[in-house]
Amino acid sequence: MTADRDELIARYRTVRARTEALAAPLVPEDQQLQAMPAASPTKWHRAHTTWFFETFVLAPRGVAPVEPAWAVLFNSYYEAVGPRVARGKRGLLGRPTADEIGRYRLIVDGRVIELLAGADAAALAALAPLIELGLAHEEQHQELIVTDIVAAFAEHPLRPAYRGPIAPAPRQGAAAWLELAGGEVTIGAPADGFAFDNEHPRHRVLLAPYALSTRLVTWAELDAFVDAGGYATPSWWLSDGLDWVRAHHVDAPGYARRDGGRWLVFGPGGEREVGGDEPVLFLSYYEADAIARFLGARLPTEAEWEHAARGPLAGRHGVAWEWTSSAYAPYPGYRAGAGALGEYNGKFMVNQLVLRGGSIATPPGHVRPSYRNFWPPDTRFQLSGLRLARDLEVRR
Amino acid sequence: MTADRDELIARYRTVRARTEALAAPLVPEDQQLQAMPAASPTKWHRAHTTWFFETFVLAPRGVAPVEPAWAVLFNSYYEAVGPRVARGKRGLLGRPTADEIGRYRLIVDGRVIELLAGADAAALAALAPLIELGLAHEEQHQELIVTDIVAAFAEHPLRPAYRGPIAPAPRQGAAAWLELAGGEVTIGAPADGFAFDNEHPRHRVLLAPYALSTRLVTWAELDAFVDAGGYATPSWWLSDGLDWVRAHHVDAPGYARRDGGRWLVFGPGGEREVGGDEPVLFLSYYEADAIARFLGARLPTEAEWEHAARGPLAGRHGVAWEWTSSAYAPYPGYRAGAGALGEYNGKFMVNQLVLRGGSIATPPGHVRPSYRNFWPPDTRFQLSGLRLARDLEVRR
Amino acid sequence: MTADRDELIARYRTVRARTEALAAPLVPEDQQLQAMPAASPTKWHRAHTTWFFETFVLAPRGVAPVEPAWAVLFNSYYEAVGPRVARGKRGLLGRPTADEIGRYRLIVDGRVIELLAGADAAALAALAPLIELGLAHEEQHQELIVTDIVAAFAEHPLRPAYRGPIAPAPRQGAAAWLELAGGEVTIGAPADGFAFDNEHPRHRVLLAPYALSTRLVTWAELDAFVDAGGYATPSWWLSDGLDWVRAHHVDAPGYARRDGGRWLVFGPGGEREVGGDEPVLFLSYYEADAIARFLGARLPTEAEWEHAARGPLAGRHGVAWEWTSSAYAPYPGYRAGAGALGEYNGKFMVNQLVLRGGSIATPPGHVRPSYRNFWPPDTRFQLSGLRLARDLEVRR
Amino acid sequence: MTADRDELIARYRTVRARTEALAAPLVPEDQQLQAMPAASPTKWHRAHTTWFFETFVLAPRGVAPVEPAWAVLFNSYYEAVGPRVARGKRGLLGRPTADEIGRYRLIVDGRVIELLAGADAAALAALAPLIELGLAHEEQHQELIVTDIVAAFAEHPLRPAYRGPIAPAPRQGAAAWLELAGGEVTIGAPADGFAFDNEHPRHRVLLAPYALSTRLVTWAELDAFVDAGGYATPSWWLSDGLDWVRAHHVDAPGYARRDGGRWLVFGPGGEREVGGDEPVLFLSYYEADAIARFLGARLPTEAEWEHAARGPLAGRHGVAWEWTSSAYAPYPGYRAGAGALGEYNGKFMVNQLVLRGGSIATPPGHVRPSYRNFWPPDTRFQLSGLRLARDLEVRR
Repeated sequence: MTADRDELIARYRTVRARTEALAAPLVPEDQQLQAMPAASPTKWHRAHTTWFFETFVLAPRGVAPVEPAWAVLFNSYYEAVGPRVARGKRGLLGRPTADEIGRYRLIVDGRVIELLAGADAAALAALAPLIELGLAHEEQHQELIVTDIVAAFAEHPLRPAYRGPIAPAPRQGAAAWLELAGGEVTIGAPADGFAFDNEHPRHRVLLAPYALSTRLVTWAELDAFVDAGGYATPSWWLSDGLDWVRAHHVDAPGYARRDGGRWLVFGPGGEREVGGDEPVLFLSYYEADAIARFLGARLPTEAEWEHAARGPLAGRHGVAWEWTSSAYAPYPGYRAGAGALGEYNGKFMVNQLVLRGGSIATPPGHVRPSYRNFWPPDTRFQLSGLRLARDLEVRR
Repeated sequence: MTADRDELIARYRTVRARTEALAAPLVPEDQQLQAMPAASPTKWHRAHTTWFFETFVLAPRGVAPVEPAWAVLFNSYYEAVGPRVARGKRGLLGRPTADEIGRYRLIVDGRVIELLAGADAAALAALAPLIELGLAHEEQHQELIVTDIVAAFAEHPLRPAYRGPIAPAPRQGAAAWLELAGGEVTIGAPADGFAFDNEHPRHRVLLAPYALSTRLVTWAELDAFVDAGGYATPSWWLSDGLDWVRAHHVDAPGYARRDGGRWLVFGPGGEREVGGDEPVLFLSYYEADAIARFLGARLPTEAEWEHAARGPLAGRHGVAWEWTSSAYAPYPGYRAGAGALGEYNGKFMVNQLVLRGGSIATPPGHVRPSYRNFWPPDTRFQLSGLRLARDLEVRR
Repeated sequence: MTADRDELIARYRTVRARTEALAAPLVPEDQQLQAMPAASPTKWHRAHTTWFFETFVLAPRGVAPVEPAWAVLFNSYYEAVGPRVARGKRGLLGRPTADEIGRYRLIVDGRVIELLAGADAAALAALAPLIELGLAHEEQHQELIVTDIVAAFAEHPLRPAYRGPIAPAPRQGAAAWLELAGGEVTIGAPADGFAFDNEHPRHRVLLAPYALSTRLVTWAELDAFVDAGGYATPSWWLSDGLDWVRAHHVDAPGYARRDGGRWLVFGPGGEREVGGDEPVLFLSYYEADAIARFLGARLPTEAEWEHAARGPLAGRHGVAWEWTSSAYAPYPGYRAGAGALGEYNGKFMVNQLVLRGGSIATPPGHVRPSYRNFWPPDTRFQLSGLRLARDLEVRR
Repeated sequence: MTADRDELIARYRTVRARTEALAAPLVPEDQQLQAMPAASPTKWHRAHTTWFFETFVLAPRGVAPVEPAWAVLFNSYYEAVGPRVARGKRGLLGRPTADEIGRYRLIVDGRVIELLAGADAAALAALAPLIELGLAHEEQHQELIVTDIVAAFAEHPLRPAYRGPIAPAPRQGAAAWLELAGGEVTIGAPADGFAFDNEHPRHRVLLAPYALSTRLVTWAELDAFVDAGGYATPSWWLSDGLDWVRAHHVDAPGYARRDGGRWLVFGPGGEREVGGDEPVLFLSYYEADAIARFLGARLPTEAEWEHAARGPLAGRHGVAWEWTSSAYAPYPGYRAGAGALGEYNGKFMVNQLVLRGGSIATPPGHVRPSYRNFWPPDTRFQLSGLRLARDLEVRR
């Protein structure tokens, strides 16, 4: 039990420190920027993740908030918790300052660790899942810190580079098809180990035989799509996708431009030329779906992806989020939790598509086969690409 | 074979005549109205369904169009066929007139029947599925003629009544739960008989045990939702649904208002008071989902619905379209057809939810267990309601 | 007095008949079209002008309306009279039909003429100015019948031609400068003769010496502007104008396109090639202002225009409305009338610019030196052009 | 000449220092905020005014910019100078930081003073009007620093207070009417002394006899308007004003709320209760016009205002900007300057109304009788109120 406690405290310190490390290269002005309603200022992410611990861990145990008036500022979307600042107006919260938020984080850290350190076994058992949830939540925001500051820097004519602690992506190997027999398979998170509620319940589904590519679609493959006039050819596109392409004059992935024969892409680290075999990034679902169709394939369903990830795909993902063709929906028998935490996932289950895998900005421990990321189909500021799938003939 | 030919010609004449019967009560001015981009003028429906036969039946057989310049006017969305009028501007097509469209229909009818009458067996075999598709397509537009003119009349301060040949809905019986064991079941259209491509391929899915209500949710149940402040209580709503309710100040189903203790609803036939046990109509998906949650249940998936419709639910639907929780997506192994007709269904498979069943405005032969209707979740001008579903405990 | 009465009745019949003559070439479907919120369906113009006589002439004299329920349909903007259909939804009023509106007009005509025929001298004296106002109002709508149906037909891919009773524009003579000494001059309508309230009070203004062109700017001059890249050169444009040009991708006047070396313009009569010395039409204020600046001149003020129109410009205008640089504002000492009719002009005196003169669609008797037309600066569907003005050096 | 030089340098230093004093109470995060496209971040104002001296004073004299890449960031609207960041995206310029901008200001200050100190008489004579223009320009931005940070703080749920060096407004005296005979009067800036180009040329206008109130309309008078249902009574409003009130649910001036019998207004210094005889602030033109009409009066024209300000109104204004009924337009004979500086005023002369006077946030030396401020009619974030005017009967 002591080991568990120490481990929990150690993990808490590690995750919380990583957030600050991600923010460290950013001056207060950078941390204030909000490029669009779907992105948030760095400093807001730092404060919101802290508010989460205050609200769901400390407050129920009688610990008064550091600054009660801040609740309205740092509540993201919990209707049950009270009012909040409109999502698109987070960039107008000049106060508290980045520095004050740093102090806020330290104070809350002290209180949480004090709580954990002094908890008896029963209290610790009750606390552990909440802490795990809070840390998983914070890890989600760590990825957003990266994508959101890139979105902000992309708006700056001088294109400043974000230089946080993100490792470069490993090279992809050659493309090959992994063949899977399908049948009745199990997806969803196992009973043990942390998982979000939307990964439950574990359940069985029927899959027809299918194949998945060993690697993500590359910039070289995108070249072929662009050269063939893919962005302007209706037959590759979903109807809504075509409307979107035309309305926004889209002719390349987000943050990307073709300069002669090479692709220049703005991302973490600034603008750089990408090699042809690197995975395409910053794709909307509409583009991913059209590119797959152009390449004679399709997107996988999330069940196909997860089943493969527990088999031959294991260790072959995590470079970019992979759009699936699955709408984000509750698993059979899904129940949202009670109270405010029940709002965590369930209420977003419409108008979004599931992405699987993870990206170079995803915290390492955060990648798992059952993990479900989700975004609306026109989203382009995430580190999102695609992997091809195709049906296999049924062997008789 | 002769019988088939005669049957086909007879069915062609019946369906085509029904369209004109639906339009008959409407003066030329009525037929010009377009209440919103998603709705079309009556006369446009009459012309577009005719253009469909010209383009996909007559033209490939060398029959020149009645008026070549009209192609741009009456193409709905077939990118492969050529340019077209923007959907929201169909109401600006004053010419051809309603009367000219009537003549256009008669000329095309003559040509189609001539073609069918003179076809040899091989030609007839090739023609039959195209005719069937064209008639099924026209039946879809027959329902839209009703919903779209109701949408237009609803905008008129004097609320004119549409008095087309629509039978009143039968009374619903008492509510009860139909229990289904689930397991591995088959859904999708069988190989024989007409079905749209999106109903194929027939395939097997796994279902957990579940129950469906014998009847649709009623105005009396809506009363309870409204009385409990349902439209303003966040916990019942999907996040996008809550945004939608607030942005549009929604506090009742479409075309409905509560006057004292009774509900007055505008629909085919004009405004009338609805009995408490009649099914709620004109609901968006957001409302259907919220009402189901309020009533302690959930929406069925489309597989649950279809499986039940081949069993205990048979004959117990068809009064109102029923929202399911299933996003509109291709069935495993789905292939869109080649050429322009391949655009019929596949390219709409995003951002929409499936509705099952049928309504009082659905042509009788058009209702079948595998039929998939689909609309975006904020749609309220269709004859759409909901049926409750719930999980059954697994019996061990 | 009898002469006056007969004259008034004759004028009533003439004006009312001209409205019907303008609508005569249009089928019921045409009369239903509304291209944009600022334009109205033909049949609405026919009904609204009739409602005006019912409301302001007949009703105060105890004559009940033909159809009381129609008041809400045909009130344009009189807040004091009651509720009304939103301007942009007039195209959704399928009922009453064009034919029913024809009957409505005849009934009201009969009632008005009966009233005039039977009025004693005092009653007639009170009626005459109301009848004059109603007829002047109807003449305004006669011009709108033309511009609004052109706006609707311009949306039709087959571009039907409006063939109403409109005379072609006379040829313009050579360009020359009319020099005017300015000084203290009088503008505004004289006490006798009909004028709208916004033409009063007649008052004195100071003008510096100025010159006006004898003719309107021509398509040949527009050629020079376009060839010089005028639509894309910021220095010619007002800031709001430049934003407007860019947002709407404007590169030619409304309904106009350059095909090789010639201008093709869609207007009354359909699309036709315009001669180089014909006046440019369908210009926004932004374009008129930019073209004047490009040509080394400026737009006149309305006082400059009116003063010239009582002098050397007399008889040299009336082909196209001429944008002035004057914002539409009350004259010194202006008082809006009491009651609903007081809403006729005054409440529109912001965000609009004055146009002077008249067009080929303006009823002949409707052109007078003091007449003030007004539209927002981005308006392009009126028959609007420009005449150049410039400052003259003060001679000492 | 030495005196002039010293005076010029002294004035340069004073104005530049005042900008920094206004920004001093604001942390870097505050200085980053942009509440709406029409408002700019504090730090952007500080940099843009510095860029102005670099571009129009130093660059033409061969002084290279401190950081050439910043031109695109701090150009406001000068098309002739090159590209620029969209107005609404200034808040996304995290870099350079507030601190870097402070250094930028000091470097440019050093260069300007060096230039002035070393200029010979001819060079100084050429420089002086540019410096004066640059300082007048900076004073305009000083007022915007105040209004724009108030707009940003107003969006913050905790409503931080701006505590810059702004003196409280003096108390207003009792209301009385100042009567003016009118006649032919002169308005516009005299030949000597600094003025913007839009204040020229000085010219004569004719005025009818009129009266102006000695004081601005007060919160007590607004009470009467609100109590009478003024915000919901169409007869007081311009048509566009009524549309605006309804679309934005306006029922009080900007930043103001009525709490029981008292008015609480958020402004510089935070929220405070205002005394009944203080002038109403944060009014749009639409409100000012409606309130004047409700009070049985009207807004003055700018000529009436200016003529009075050179007479009995002298010393009785400067507490709040006063809406006039005059559209912002060029004076007769107006010529915009050549080159980029010619864009300073002329290109904004449409869709705006003139305000006269000045506010508590206006730099003291910046108030003069001929000064013309201008904003679109729906603007509410300026310190804008109104003064009543009325016509006087002509005495014969």
